[in-house]
Amino acid sequence: MTNYFTEEASVEAVNGRMASDIDPRVREVMTLLVKHLHAFIKEAKVSQQEWETAVRFLTQTGKICSEERQEFILLSDTLGVSMLVDAINNRRQPGATENTVLGPFHVAGAPRLAMGDRITLDGKGESCVFEGAVVDLDGHPIEGAIIDVWSDNADGFYDVQQPDAQPKWNNRGTFVTGPDGRYSFVGIKPVSYPIPADGPVGQMLKQLGRHPYRPAHMHYIVTAASFQKLVTHTFVGDDSYLSSDAVFGVKATLIAPYERVLGGETVWRSPFDFVLNPL
Amino acid sequence: MTNYFTEEASVEAVNGRMASDIDPRVREVMTLLVKHLHAFIKEAKVSQQEWETAVRFLTQTGKICSEERQEFILLSDTLGVSMLVDAINNRRQPGATENTVLGPFHVAGAPRLAMGDRITLDGKGESCVFEGAVVDLDGHPIEGAIIDVWSDNADGFYDVQQPDAQPKWNNRGTFVTGPDGRYSFVGIKPVSYPIPADGPVGQMLKQLGRHPYRPAHMHYIVTAASFQKLVTHTFVGDDSYLSSDAVFGVKATLIAPYERVLGGETVWRSPFDFVLNPL
Ligand SMILES: [Cu+2]
Ligand SMILES: [Fe+3]
Ligand SMILES: [Fe+3]
Repeated sequence: MTNYFTEEASVEAVNGRMASDIDPRVREVMTLLVKHLHAFIKEAKVSQQEWETAVRFLTQTGKICSEERQEFILLSDTLGVSMLVDAINNRRQPGATENTVLGPFHVAGAPRLAMGDRITLDGKGESCVFEGAVVDLDGHPIEGAIIDVWSDNADGFYDVQQPDAQPKWNNRGTFVTGPDGRYSFVGIKPVSYPIPADGPVGQMLKQLGRHPYRPAHMHYIVTAASFQKLVTHTFVGDDSYLSSDAVFGVKATLIAPYERVLGGETVWRSPFDFVLNPL
Repeated sequence: MTNYFTEEASVEAVNGRMASDIDPRVREVMTLLVKHLHAFIKEAKVSQQEWETAVRFLTQTGKICSEERQEFILLSDTLGVSMLVDAINNRRQPGATENTVLGPFHVAGAPRLAMGDRITLDGKGESCVFEGAVVDLDGHPIEGAIIDVWSDNADGFYDVQQPDAQPKWNNRGTFVTGPDGRYSFVGIKPVSYPIPADGPVGQMLKQLGRHPYRPAHMHYIVTAASFQKLVTHTFVGDDSYLSSDAVFGVKATLIAPYERVLGGETVWRSPFDFVLNPL
């Protein structure tokens, strides 16, 4: 029986072509991809010229990718896809700290520091003490939790973006909790920064009337034996981009207080507890 | 009012970010794209690892694109997207000849030939006379219709794929109909050929248990004043890939007879009438 392509039965024509003995998960994902992709094209009545624009956009997005730049991840981020995949794969019990996107600037192997140490090495920015506890859902402290932190510097750049201008490991460090589960370190109050906007994704944002900025945030990965890995940020509570993060990373529960500290050389204090979900 | 990202309201969070004063068609298309893209991810429950595979696939697809190769068009073709866009934009009255994909091998400016001329210049293949009429929906001949034809050679390659091995314009030509609307030219019985399968799209086809072949076909663009432009193929009726064209180009009405001709140097005859839809 032939199954030639028609507008009406386009999905069946394409999906019916898969062989019977392929990987079942490949079959499932591709069947759904074709279904929603064709539904989009039909509902939007995509014109030939719009299709050509899409082909050109995807090609340019691929062309600009390099060791240092991943424009397809940026596209995924700005369309909310990265956050959606993260959400689907990290559903947690109420009360557990929520995930958000990893971002492109994590570097494995940051120096192990002692509690209270300073992670800022370039002397720039308003210093801030970050402190709190790593606890389970009942509030009990978790000993031996590893906290990996990183942020931009006061100019809005991560050390890896400015290898010639910033000391290596500037505003990065790892800490291990003791029996009280508490952590503390001195960094700076982070500042907002734009995602790379000089490529196809930047052009898309412009067409959508959107800006490329992320509200200021401190990145964290918190891991502990028999708990789900937590990949998250805390956001600076008074940032003007909080409700318009270019990559949709903000969740209400991740907005941290920043309190002014009087006297001494530290200017801010940002308390935040991390509540880990059991595996 | 803040509108932070949540799994449930992911579509609203992303689409709500568009500015109010953007191009209305951009708004419409992007709103529908985000809706169906998020629906796909939710229904397929895409894992983090699958998302990484998708990012890598799209990046490689972009990287392999060049002046001579358009892997995103190949991806569109093999997922039935090119045929769907063509179908949506070329709906016709019953009886009018249907469109199919243009393909990557059309070259504008092929030589104008006289009716009955030979388009095959390399001496290869089984020669075939193609003939018929260009008519309107009532069967009346259309005078002054331009017929632009091209096919692969007997080895399965278009002249532009083998600029050193084939004469320029091999198996290409344009013809203009007279008052009787009739056309005729001598080419070869085309042969089936694979689309480029050594890149990411070829890997995808392998994972789907699909082959990369197109059934043998002759390409046509037929244009005439006050009629819709017709971009189509006729397919060789006994080809073994007819029901499994890698790009879904086959329509039942485009399968042409190939009759053996007795005596003389021509071996085959393929009659086909083109019925144009008024503008
Ligand atoms: Cu859909
Ligand atoms: Fe960041
Ligand atoms: Fe072809």
